[in-house]
Amino acid sequence: MNPSTETRDLPRTSGATRARIMMAVVKAAAGPGAEIREVPVPTVGAGELLLRVLRAGVCGTDLHIVEWDRWSAGRLQPPVTLGHEFVGEIVESGSGVSGFTAGERVSCESHIICNHCLPCRTGNGHVCENTRILGVDVNGGFAEFVAVPAVNAWRTPANIPIEVAGIMEPLGNAVHTAFAGPLSGCNIAVTGCGPIGLFAIGVARAAGAARVFASDVSPYRLDLARRMNADAVIDVSKENFPERIRQLTDGRGLDGVLEMSGSPQAMRDGLSALHNGGRLSLLGLPKEPFDLDWNRLVIFKGITLRGIIGRRMFGTWVQMDQLLGSGRLDLRPAITHVMPMEKFLEAIALLRSGNAGKVVLVPWGLEGAENRRA
Amino acid sequence: MNPSTETRDLPRTSGATRARIMMAVVKAAAGPGAEIREVPVPTVGAGELLLRVLRAGVCGTDLHIVEWDRWSAGRLQPPVTLGHEFVGEIVESGSGVSGFTAGERVSCESHIICNHCLPCRTGNGHVCENTRILGVDVNGGFAEFVAVPAVNAWRTPANIPIEVAGIMEPLGNAVHTAFAGPLSGCNIAVTGCGPIGLFAIGVARAAGAARVFASDVSPYRLDLARRMNADAVIDVSKENFPERIRQLTDGRGLDGVLEMSGSPQAMRDGLSALHNGGRLSLLGLPKEPFDLDWNRLVIFKGITLRGIIGRRMFGTWVQMDQLLGSGRLDLRPAITHVMPMEKFLEAIALLRSGNAGKVVLVPWGLEGAENRRA
Amino acid sequence: MNPSTETRDLPRTSGATRARIMMAVVKAAAGPGAEIREVPVPTVGAGELLLRVLRAGVCGTDLHIVEWDRWSAGRLQPPVTLGHEFVGEIVESGSGVSGFTAGERVSCESHIICNHCLPCRTGNGHVCENTRILGVDVNGGFAEFVAVPAVNAWRTPANIPIEVAGIMEPLGNAVHTAFAGPLSGCNIAVTGCGPIGLFAIGVARAAGAARVFASDVSPYRLDLARRMNADAVIDVSKENFPERIRQLTDGRGLDGVLEMSGSPQAMRDGLSALHNGGRLSLLGLPKEPFDLDWNRLVIFKGITLRGIIGRRMFGTWVQMDQLLGSGRLDLRPAITHVMPMEKFLEAIALLRSGNAGKVVLVPWGLEGAENRRA
Amino acid sequence: MNPSTETRDLPRTSGATRARIMMAVVKAAAGPGAEIREVPVPTVGAGELLLRVLRAGVCGTDLHIVEWDRWSAGRLQPPVTLGHEFVGEIVESGSGVSGFTAGERVSCESHIICNHCLPCRTGNGHVCENTRILGVDVNGGFAEFVAVPAVNAWRTPANIPIEVAGIMEPLGNAVHTAFAGPLSGCNIAVTGCGPIGLFAIGVARAAGAARVFASDVSPYRLDLARRMNADAVIDVSKENFPERIRQLTDGRGLDGVLEMSGSPQAMRDGLSALHNGGRLSLLGLPKEPFDLDWNRLVIFKGITLRGIIGRRMFGTWVQMDQLLGSGRLDLRPAITHVMPMEKFLEAIALLRSGNAGKVVLVPWGLEGAENRRA
Repeated sequence: MNPSTETRDLPRTSGATRARIMMAVVKAAAGPGAEIREVPVPTVGAGELLLRVLRAGVCGTDLHIVEWDRWSAGRLQPPVTLGHEFVGEIVESGSGVSGFTAGERVSCESHIICNHCLPCRTGNGHVCENTRILGVDVNGGFAEFVAVPAVNAWRTPANIPIEVAGIMEPLGNAVHTAFAGPLSGCNIAVTGCGPIGLFAIGVARAAGAARVFASDVSPYRLDLARRMNADAVIDVSKENFPERIRQLTDGRGLDGVLEMSGSPQAMRDGLSALHNGGRLSLLGLPKEPFDLDWNRLVIFKGITLRGIIGRRMFGTWVQMDQLLGSGRLDLRPAITHVMPMEKFLEAIALLRSGNAGKVVLVPWGLEGAENRRA
Repeated sequence: MNPSTETRDLPRTSGATRARIMMAVVKAAAGPGAEIREVPVPTVGAGELLLRVLRAGVCGTDLHIVEWDRWSAGRLQPPVTLGHEFVGEIVESGSGVSGFTAGERVSCESHIICNHCLPCRTGNGHVCENTRILGVDVNGGFAEFVAVPAVNAWRTPANIPIEVAGIMEPLGNAVHTAFAGPLSGCNIAVTGCGPIGLFAIGVARAAGAARVFASDVSPYRLDLARRMNADAVIDVSKENFPERIRQLTDGRGLDGVLEMSGSPQAMRDGLSALHNGGRLSLLGLPKEPFDLDWNRLVIFKGITLRGIIGRRMFGTWVQMDQLLGSGRLDLRPAITHVMPMEKFLEAIALLRSGNAGKVVLVPWGLEGAENRRA
Repeated sequence: MNPSTETRDLPRTSGATRARIMMAVVKAAAGPGAEIREVPVPTVGAGELLLRVLRAGVCGTDLHIVEWDRWSAGRLQPPVTLGHEFVGEIVESGSGVSGFTAGERVSCESHIICNHCLPCRTGNGHVCENTRILGVDVNGGFAEFVAVPAVNAWRTPANIPIEVAGIMEPLGNAVHTAFAGPLSGCNIAVTGCGPIGLFAIGVARAAGAARVFASDVSPYRLDLARRMNADAVIDVSKENFPERIRQLTDGRGLDGVLEMSGSPQAMRDGLSALHNGGRLSLLGLPKEPFDLDWNRLVIFKGITLRGIIGRRMFGTWVQMDQLLGSGRLDLRPAITHVMPMEKFLEAIALLRSGNAGKVVLVPWGLEGAENRRA
Repeated sequence: MNPSTETRDLPRTSGATRARIMMAVVKAAAGPGAEIREVPVPTVGAGELLLRVLRAGVCGTDLHIVEWDRWSAGRLQPPVTLGHEFVGEIVESGSGVSGFTAGERVSCESHIICNHCLPCRTGNGHVCENTRILGVDVNGGFAEFVAVPAVNAWRTPANIPIEVAGIMEPLGNAVHTAFAGPLSGCNIAVTGCGPIGLFAIGVARAAGAARVFASDVSPYRLDLARRMNADAVIDVSKENFPERIRQLTDGRGLDGVLEMSGSPQAMRDGLSALHNGGRLSLLGLPKEPFDLDWNRLVIFKGITLRGIIGRRMFGTWVQMDQLLGSGRLDLRPAITHVMPMEKFLEAIALLRSGNAGKVVLVPWGLEGAENRRA
């Protein structure tokens, strides 16, 4: 963002002063599980930065990769170091990199895009037809060091906590979803209160929604939604969502739904609770195909439904900067655990249990892991 | 559109000079069928116009009403005069009407809206939460005369053929669908070549699409699509739609799909053939709920999917005026039959056979019915 | 908004129980000044509501009308009752009105539009080519009673203070200006801290701007801007606006300027302080034509500049409802005086002095005037 | 656009087989004039392509540079090879270039952008805060060879004439201006029929405008406008523009104005001829600041005015591809002269005379220069 910044003291390809071996969380072979083991420190190629990882977030996708679901089996080519959400400190840069300084703190866009396809050439790199993802297709940030393309690095605002800097990637999903339609002065519901849903509650409020409602089936998650200042929370295991929304909005209905659960019922309920002409932005990945009553829920209502993937590159990052840098958005209530990276498999177990919001990992040798439980 | 027009010679509620009884096509009772019979000429209420019907179009919805499908059985309250697409000549006006002159030719928006609900108050009357439809909920235009709210009347451009003036309502569906996303310079496909699909081909071309492709399974309809100047037609009973599109676009894919068929396969194929970030506008009503692979077809591709109903009131009518009035758009190849209204049931049989494009009816006592077969 | 509301107890055209004469502020003849005098209570025509006025706001335009500037001399046709910002209680309705109940509290859109011109027919009634304005072209609300078209009446949220309900018309100017471009997460400046500028500060914050800056030359007004929670205020008599903005935004510049002053320098400074591709929304009326360096300030920067007039009908009113009804927006710091309507000329003198924010008037016989000075 | 294309036979930095000296049009020193002389063939740096220039267009900016106006004097740092519009054949590539093949024909975006500033990072590189321009700030294409960043190269559709491929840069200005607001079904006027205005006529028609009007004061240019199929041309030295537009549009007014002249009167007339709520897109550079009656022409009308610079990178290029590749757009009537590059100063004299549309130059040693006069 700051084109005058000099890259004055970045050592280039020296590496003499640092270790050649590091600890990492690695999917070593096809099949369930993940290993913590020593791997070589990455070498930094042309156009890349080498980062010392400071914090990294654990994502539901990491759980799927550990469990080796169908998607993982079809996509990952082990061995690969996991971790696609992280912040690090720049320690080295490859040839052709400008605009960065050693010691700067950068968060990273996880999508490495081709820059040649039609979406890339028209400002829609987030739907690049040839995306590779850090921690999925190439080595990621669950490690002491990670090499990333310099164009993927984003200087984090100085005033935000290091844990928050570590989870800008999933925050970007929430921002992208929320900003995919009108927000200011709107009645918005977030369906699904996993970490990205929790972030979306905060984002919608900070971005000027009039009222933000949240739904889930887990009392634990609904409690976190309340801490993120949802105007009302709806336990859909007990309450009828469209009816409750109708009460909460004086019969007006919702302007927008941010679907974060992947649940067919959440989507049907969300569509039903929209007023005619409303929008549903769809980030949650359903486990399998499901059907809709298109006539009643989409066509007769004139609904706009949009699939959301990744983050706008880098419009979403500017928006995060503004929301976090101004102090309007505080994500800390959604971060329930900060743990040593060494305990990665415990973190995965926490996610599986459902009794966690966002879990952040602290790499080996760094302070800050508190095993916190909100 | 012309606020200075005087209403100088409209007789108000006199009616002395005209007949009290007229011929009409009536759904007389719950159940299949429709009758041609005498009914009273409508009286014209406050804010209404009485029109002598000049031409009326037959719609697939009329076929459903004659067959008394589930939707019809749940919605119509016989007796009701059918017909929601028509053009007429103003013969009388009710109290409080200004801006119209006797003898003027007007086409009609079929949606009578409440003007009170949130969509109505925010410029989205086409998705009014309390819409009543001419020829469905109130008496329509398959008759010698029809009474309509003056706010629903639209002066037709003087230079367009009377048959075309009679089918601006369904043309409006096509325009609304086409204009619901980018068109200029785009690669557009129309899936489903019934009358509205055929209109959409012409609209997309006139509105500046770079290339317009059309798909169907009927050789008859594909032939009409060619006459509407589709750049290529695709017989999806024989060809793989996404593959063919990929060939036709040098691998680029579609910018937009105008879904006019209600076919689940057409929608899946359409989504598949879009480049990432494209749009699908959905007018065709599927017979029943159907499922999608949301992840692969919508979310990972970042697709915008919009349900379309009715016509923007009255932005879509201005667009029709411009396209037709400028001569850029010619619908005549899509009008395959012009028949006496007396032969309504023959027209319905034609629709059922699939061997018809648009069928236009000429009321009793007027010339112009030619029993034309394109 | 609530289509099921019955109009059960509205007396229609009886009027027997109320006075025939009332007090009003009247521009009685061409030339400077205004009179407080007795006039007939308005009769209520077809489609109209008669309101007992509860509160009314004084606008800079009223000052111009009293001073009889060139615009006033060319537009007003005395005698006319002034006042275009007000809230009232429904006391009677004319024929053809539905959806309102006697005793309901309604605020009013001041633009009476033609419903026939191109902008009206396409959802842009705020730029109707034939607008007439309450309190300017037809009798307004500086009186005990006022008759208004029912379509102009807007039920105010129950939870907002009566003074705020009285100034929704100018609030709507602020909302319309602010919502004419991106707000959420943006850096916004309001240039000019008169009442609408002060409202705009609150609106931009409530609607999710990341940071809201305000500029003026009056310490009194800048103090009010601070009370409306501007993130920073800039006294342009002492500070260079573009330079100060650059400091405040880390060199990034503004995403949007809401121009409320009509000052040529404010507009040039605002354009200069925008980052390339930003927007300036222009509500403030300059006293006379002025020049711009188009190349440097508009073309090379790729700026979007939009003229703003009135309020979107009624999208802006929905937005006001949402912002006020949710409690996100509080206008009270901008209301510096609440005075008896009897003291209208004192109110005008206050405006002329510059030592006032919004001045609200209380009609004869009602309590609540406090002669408050913030 | 085609990410699978291999770069299999590009010689890298060899250059052994080609000459080291070439002919070029050079601004050799500060002050009026330009020289044709020998210069070294450019060396190709990292990320660059070396092109053999096939055709190059002469722009009004080149005239200003030859005349050494204030802008030129403040910006150019001689010596510099001129020429910012051209097409060439790839002869060599620098390190790090992929996706291109020797022998491919590419046109070039002339803006070299920083990729770091806020506009660049948010998909608005056309308003990059640090743009350098080929043929202005770095050596351009009025030469036998030119080196360009590979990211600026755009494969031209195979079916378009070589002259047209040579002027995609200014065509992009026209497309960018036209596409900056609604086009499909709209009434559009192009004010100013220089080459970009002429292109804009063709673009607006191909992109689906209902009617395209063109204005100028030169009979020569108006004749070219007719050849580009303008629906009507207006000689503003003889006719009142707003009145004529009102006649041509049945009183409706314009939806959009594409301002290409830089004339204050054209801009005022254009604003006046817009219906309320219309848009004016502003590409023409006025010679000096000028004033507007903001109230009457912008604010009361609710106009959207946008400054246009460059081309969207690379959305505008995709649109050009689509319009040209589909055959919808034919620019040949606007190309009045094809001359040897040797005669550059004659071309400049032609531009100065006003009796030229687009002038295209053919480099030394290539056939195709015809000294054509339309």
